[in-house]
Amino acid sequence: MARWEPNAAQRLATAALDLFDERGYDHTTVLDIAQRAGLAKSTFFRHFPDKRAVLFGEDTLTGPLLAALTAAPPAATPLEAVARGLDALGREVFTPERHLFVARRRAVIDAHPELQEREALKGLHLTAALTRALTDRGAPVLAAEVAAQLGALALKTAYERWSGTGGTGEFGTLARQALDEVRDATTAL
Amino acid sequence: MARWEPNAAQRLATAALDLFDERGYDHTTVLDIAQRAGLAKSTFFRHFPDKRAVLFGEDTLTGPLLAALTAAPPAATPLEAVARGLDALGREVFTPERHLFVARRRAVIDAHPELQEREALKGLHLTAALTRALTDRGAPVLAAEVAAQLGALALKTAYERWSGTGGTGEFGTLARQALDEVRDATTAL
Repeated sequence: MARWEPNAAQRLATAALDLFDERGYDHTTVLDIAQRAGLAKSTFFRHFPDKRAVLFGEDTLTGPLLAALTAAPPAATPLEAVARGLDALGREVFTPERHLFVARRRAVIDAHPELQEREALKGLHLTAALTRALTDRGAPVLAAEVAAQLGALALKTAYERWSGTGGTGEFGTLARQALDEVRDATTAL
Repeated sequence: MARWEPNAAQRLATAALDLFDERGYDHTTVLDIAQRAGLAKSTFFRHFPDKRAVLFGEDTLTGPLLAALTAAPPAATPLEAVARGLDALGREVFTPERHLFVARRRAVIDAHPELQEREALKGLHLTAALTRALTDRGAPVLAAEVAAQLGALALKTAYERWSGTGGTGEFGTLARQALDEVRDATTAL
């Protein structure tokens, strides 16, 4: 048997989500996941420190979001820069191929308060990173904080809509819409 | 020795903050705290489940905030209703007598990432409660979410300014100022 297993991480993640669906997150062990994927337990641990890391292993959002935000023209307002970042998430992260995984991951998280808390903290870290990137562009602190909060709200809204559909919508389009709605909502306060 | 100890909770909290200052949060035990307060360890546990609860024991914000928000006139906009809630915090929670405790509590939290995370989660729960209270008043979901986020940002800003000063400022005034600044910042996005 080959030591190198093709697509091991993806096979493990898919097996994990299957098992979380079938018997629940709490009743799934790392050994169960490895067996379902047809891999050794040691292979699991080469890819993930524990089963929660299947859901929270890698921060795939911050990198593309900040890279696109930072590359926005200097004249762009904070919220326009955030919009560039959201576009990048549509191109690089929330793609049609990833839709099923994202939707299934979300279903598991929504069913577990301690995972929801973890996801919420991830969101806070992302918002803090957005704020820093905007002040680095020269935005005043409070403007950066407001734009980051509103951007995070648009991201959450678009994410919920995108992952809640059959995957027909395009994330970038949903994000732009959500950002417009958030902006409109601020004028009615 | 009387079984009922006057002001035991407050004496324990003050002793805990003294010790957190002197030897650090991680190096302070429940027994240390009880001894410093001149009380039995069992008395500590009648008031707090563990030492972290001295800092996070009781949610003193949500009640007054939501009560005042809910009592705002029906015609008040979401952000005006939030402003009523912030006023109430100035009258009932962030009072001059509580300033020293709040400032010292904040210093301990700022020095410990895991306590910061806990504080951030508390903030998320508060924001979620604000959002629900605003939709209960009839605000559309996204407007409620935006107003709750901006209100939470104003609260955080005012809290940092109030606890960072010698306690001369009045919290309600600082909160109104912060809310105005946040509102102004949204127009420049």
